[in-house]
Amino acid sequence: MRMRLKLKTVFVLYFTVSLLGLIYALMQLDQQISQLRGELQKLQEHIKTSELAKKTDVPRIYVITPTYARLVQKAELTRLSHTFLHVPHLHWIVVEDAPQPTLLVTDFLAASGLTYTHLHQLTPKDRKLQEGDPSWLKPRGAEQRNEGLRWLREMGAAAEGKEAAALEEAVVYFADDDNTYSLQLFEEMRYTYRVSVWPVGLVGGMKFERPVVEDGKVVRFHTGWRPNRPFPMDMAGFAVSLRFILTTPQARFDGDAQMGFLESSFLQHLVTMDDLEPKADLCTKVLVWHTRTEKPKMKREDALQKQGLGSDPDVEV
Amino acid sequence: MRMRLKLKTVFVLYFTVSLLGLIYALMQLDQQISQLRGELQKLQEHIKTSELAKKTDVPRIYVITPTYARLVQKAELTRLSHTFLHVPHLHWIVVEDAPQPTLLVTDFLAASGLTYTHLHQLTPKDRKLQEGDPSWLKPRGAEQRNEGLRWLREMGAAAEGKEAAALEEAVVYFADDDNTYSLQLFEEMRYTYRVSVWPVGLVGGMKFERPVVEDGKVVRFHTGWRPNRPFPMDMAGFAVSLRFILTTPQARFDGDAQMGFLESSFLQHLVTMDDLEPKADLCTKVLVWHTRTEKPKMKREDALQKQGLGSDPDVEV
Repeated sequence: MRMRLKLKTVFVLYFTVSLLGLIYALMQLDQQISQLRGELQKLQEHIKTSELAKKTDVPRIYVITPTYARLVQKAELTRLSHTFLHVPHLHWIVVEDAPQPTLLVTDFLAASGLTYTHLHQLTPKDRKLQEGDPSWLKPRGAEQRNEGLRWLREMGAAAEGKEAAALEEAVVYFADDDNTYSLQLFEEMRYTYRVSVWPVGLVGGMKFERPVVEDGKVVRFHTGWRPNRPFPMDMAGFAVSLRFILTTPQARFDGDAQMGFLESSFLQHLVTMDDLEPKADLCTKVLVWHTRTEKPKMKREDALQKQGLGSDPDVEV
Repeated sequence: MRMRLKLKTVFVLYFTVSLLGLIYALMQLDQQISQLRGELQKLQEHIKTSELAKKTDVPRIYVITPTYARLVQKAELTRLSHTFLHVPHLHWIVVEDAPQPTLLVTDFLAASGLTYTHLHQLTPKDRKLQEGDPSWLKPRGAEQRNEGLRWLREMGAAAEGKEAAALEEAVVYFADDDNTYSLQLFEEMRYTYRVSVWPVGLVGGMKFERPVVEDGKVVRFHTGWRPNRPFPMDMAGFAVSLRFILTTPQARFDGDAQMGFLESSFLQHLVTMDDLEPKADLCTKVLVWHTRTEKPKMKREDALQKQGLGSDPDVEV
């Protein structure tokens, strides 16, 4: 009996001690876990509120940007990328007017931090603006926008399952590299059933052009020039659902379109005025501006180069 | 003996089972903890790389931006704010050339998401560029930059304790609202002892102007015009430590400075060429561009307004 008791006591003691140790260890672990969970939650909230740009549970926006080599190209792409970095779930399709991708744009995109696709499509010489031509003589960027559309359709045809479902919701916007875009603009266009529209500031010799909305419908256009064009709107003034682009393969830009008819050449395949979805508080807010950047003068550069004292050509500008 | 054995067996069995259970539970918890740790680390890295903007353990950058009412003002401020939103610990001092703060800038800043101070300082009429004057005739923004400096000095004089210590580390940059700034530029200027300098692209009729560095020192300037000015540099090409501005109250911009001498009028109070701290890989990288935005033509707007059909003046552009 003594022996039995002794053994039992040892066991009980041992058991009790190890149980207490276990409980202590579990409590420690539990505390650590809830601490970690708390930190995690804090970080998640932090990200949610202050870094929406990585949000992927909203429809994707494909932005097609034609671009061409010129002195201000890197500067323009730089400030444009700073805007796009704030926009959740944006995929940038950059289409160079070049026979092959340039090093400048390739390096720029790789360092941009954005999700992107880098394409190129050279404008045929007879369709290209020549040095000294007024900018309105020929539409610029038509071939590049069509190349962007081609890529989207190819990708759309190959998409399956979850990705195909995501594409159903996506929207496509044509954003030139010199315009100025508010962040709100992208939230306005994000939910587009077919074609959504809004005002564009500082375009066409006007403070703004815009669709005029009555009873929730676009009934005419406020524009300074040929209001009877099918769609007297700037490229920056509309977005199209990707679903609609994929199911309307004939919709493309006509590089031979008359001045001011490029947008119409694309949109008339897709909608009538009656179908347009007015955004930006029924087209009463200007959220995008058709800014234009001056061509920098190189008078002194040219003079210095003649003396062999020009700026180092190895420095990228 | 049988009884003892039986009790022992029960204890041993119980002990073994509970030990196994314990080990299993611990392993589970451990797994959960390392999973949580992994997630936490991922999120932390994510924040570190993609959301530096909230970082406050780096020297503060005060950016002084003179601005004035014009058609492209809101567009310019908009894209500039998108750049600044990516820069950690930036405080934007916006100084309007206006008799009082305008509604447009007030509303814009309030919605910008940036830390800012909104000032105003009207340029005296005799110092102001008149409609049609060439932009180089009189320096623009001198009074506004001086007002920004005045505010900094007033704030510096009032600061105490931790805030005063933070100001010791801060840096001041003069950023016009039409230039283009890379994000890297701000990290280059952030650690400035006295005056840091770097190249500026597309300025002065050149591809770029820059300080020329030999053996780590600025020895001359690459510029297309009057290289013998005390500091032949653009406003966008330097930053000054706040400590240095606070201890040199006489340093200010001379609104009557000759064309091209405005920067020198300020800098010559502060440093000699020998003191300049070259940044941007010893001044071999262009990280800021002196872009200029075209003044929008309002020909059609004017024509329509004469017919009473102009753009709605209640819509802010």
